[in-house]
Amino acid sequence: MDKLKLGALLKGLAKIIGSRPRLPRSLESNEALRTILERRSVRHYSDAPLPADAWAAILEAGRVAPSTVNLQTWSFALFDRDEWSEFFGKALPLGGQRAIIVLADLHRAKRVVEGFPYAPLAEYTVGVMNASLAAMNMVQAAETLGVSSVMLSETGRTGFYDAAFLAEQLALPPGVVPITTIVFGYSARGEQAMPPKLPPGAVTFTGRYRETPADILADWHLQMRAGYQAGHKGEDFSAKIRYYNTRIRTAERDLRRLVFYDGE
Amino acid sequence: MDKLKLGALLKGLAKIIGSRPRLPRSLESNEALRTILERRSVRHYSDAPLPADAWAAILEAGRVAPSTVNLQTWSFALFDRDEWSEFFGKALPLGGQRAIIVLADLHRAKRVVEGFPYAPLAEYTVGVMNASLAAMNMVQAAETLGVSSVMLSETGRTGFYDAAFLAEQLALPPGVVPITTIVFGYSARGEQAMPPKLPPGAVTFTGRYRETPADILADWHLQMRAGYQAGHKGEDFSAKIRYYNTRIRTAERDLRRLVFYDGE
Repeated sequence: MDKLKLGALLKGLAKIIGSRPRLPRSLESNEALRTILERRSVRHYSDAPLPADAWAAILEAGRVAPSTVNLQTWSFALFDRDEWSEFFGKALPLGGQRAIIVLADLHRAKRVVEGFPYAPLAEYTVGVMNASLAAMNMVQAAETLGVSSVMLSETGRTGFYDAAFLAEQLALPPGVVPITTIVFGYSARGEQAMPPKLPPGAVTFTGRYRETPADILADWHLQMRAGYQAGHKGEDFSAKIRYYNTRIRTAERDLRRLVFYDGE
Repeated sequence: MDKLKLGALLKGLAKIIGSRPRLPRSLESNEALRTILERRSVRHYSDAPLPADAWAAILEAGRVAPSTVNLQTWSFALFDRDEWSEFFGKALPLGGQRAIIVLADLHRAKRVVEGFPYAPLAEYTVGVMNASLAAMNMVQAAETLGVSSVMLSETGRTGFYDAAFLAEQLALPPGVVPITTIVFGYSARGEQAMPPKLPPGAVTFTGRYRETPADILADWHLQMRAGYQAGHKGEDFSAKIRYYNTRIRTAERDLRRLVFYDGE
C-alpha cells in the first residue's frame, strides 16, 4: 500500500476529528454514562502517583466482575513502578504508575471443581472472555476516579503477543494464559483524540449476518491510515501491519502450545 | 459430591450475604464508581420496554469500546422481543426486552487489511478479548441508565456453547464466532444478592504466580454450592457441573471447527 496523498490524509483526519461518541441529547446530563462513552486509551502518563483508595477500588472492580457460572477464571499480576523494574529489568511501560497483567486462569477452578473434561479451547474461550470482562470493569472503575489506562497486547513483552515469555517469567501453571497488560496513571496530556471508529450501524444487523458495506470499510481504512501517518511521521501504516504479522505468527505458535497443554 | 448438610449450607449462605463489593470509605460518594461495583446480573425482567435513547446509548458504548490496534473486531446481532421470536421461534430469554448476540469478528478486518497470516488462535484471542470488552462496556453503560442485563454463555441456544448452532442460524462467515448473548431489561425484583466472590487478595500476586490457598478455595466452593442449593431446590451443584461438562464437550468440538477454519 502506498502512503496517502495530502488531500486524502486531510480528508481522513477531518473524519477522525469528527469521530466522537454520540450521546442522545436526552442523556447528555448523565455523567456516569459520559464517563464510559468518553473513555480514551492514554499512552503518556504524569509523575503523579495513584492514591491507595483509587488502586483498591480498581482492583475491587476486577474482583466483582461478572463471569461464566461465576467461576472468576482470572488472576491479576500487580506491579508498581519499582516492582516492575525489579521483575522485568526495565521501566513500567509508558511512564505509568501501576500495571496489571491480566491472566485467563482455568487452573484455579479446576482445583475446586471435579471432573472437568479436557476441553482446552472451550476453557480458553471462557478464560479470555472473563478476564477481558474484568479488565474492562477495572478500566471503567479507574475512569470514574480520573485515572487513565491503556490495555497493551504487546509492547515490551507484556501482553498476549508475549504469552510464552510471560508464562515463563511468571511461572504460570498449565491453564493460565496472559491476555493483556493494563497500565494505569494520570494522563500527562489534555483531551485525547478518539481513534477512528466504524459508524453506527456498520457493525450491527438483525437476523442473518450482514457484511459491512465496502464504501464504509474503505472510509474506515482511510481514517486508520491517516491517523497512523499523522501520529507516526516517517513510518507508514503498512509497516505497522507487517510488524504485527510477524508478531502474530510467533503468538500463534506460542498460544497453541499454551492453550493445548497436555492435560494436567 | 454430596449435598451440603444444613449447618454447612447456612454457613455458606451467611458468607454469601456478607459478599459485597468493598468500596473504600473515602470513595463512597462516587456514584459512578458505585454503579460499576454494585452491578448484578439480572435474570427476571419486568414488562417495561427500553426507551429508544437508552438503547442507542448502550449500542454506542459497544461501538466506541477499546480494541487491539483499534481493529473493532466485533459484530452485534440485535433483537427486540418480536425479532427474537420470529428468528428463533421462541421467546427472548428470561423475559428480557432486547438481546445482543456478541460476535468475535475477524472477517471484517481481514477484508480491509492485506496480508494477514493464517493465525486462527491469535485471531480468536483478539476477537474474544475485544468482543468481551465491548460487551462489558455496553453492560456498564446500561447500568448508568438503570437498565439491567445478563450475559448468557448458553440457555436456549444463544451463547458460545451453541456456537455451531448460531453460526448456522446467523449464516456467519469464517472468522466470526458467537461469544455471548446479552439480555437487557428492567429488573422485576428488588436488590439482587451478590454471588460468592473470592476474597480480595485471593486472585492477585506480584511477580511469580501464587496459588490461591487451599482453605480459601474450600470456602469458595462451599459458598458456590450453598448458593446453588438455595436457589435451585431439588437440584444439586454436582448435577449442574455434570450438565456443563456435557455442554463443554460439545462446545469444544464445535469451537475447534469454527476457530480453525481452513483459510478463506
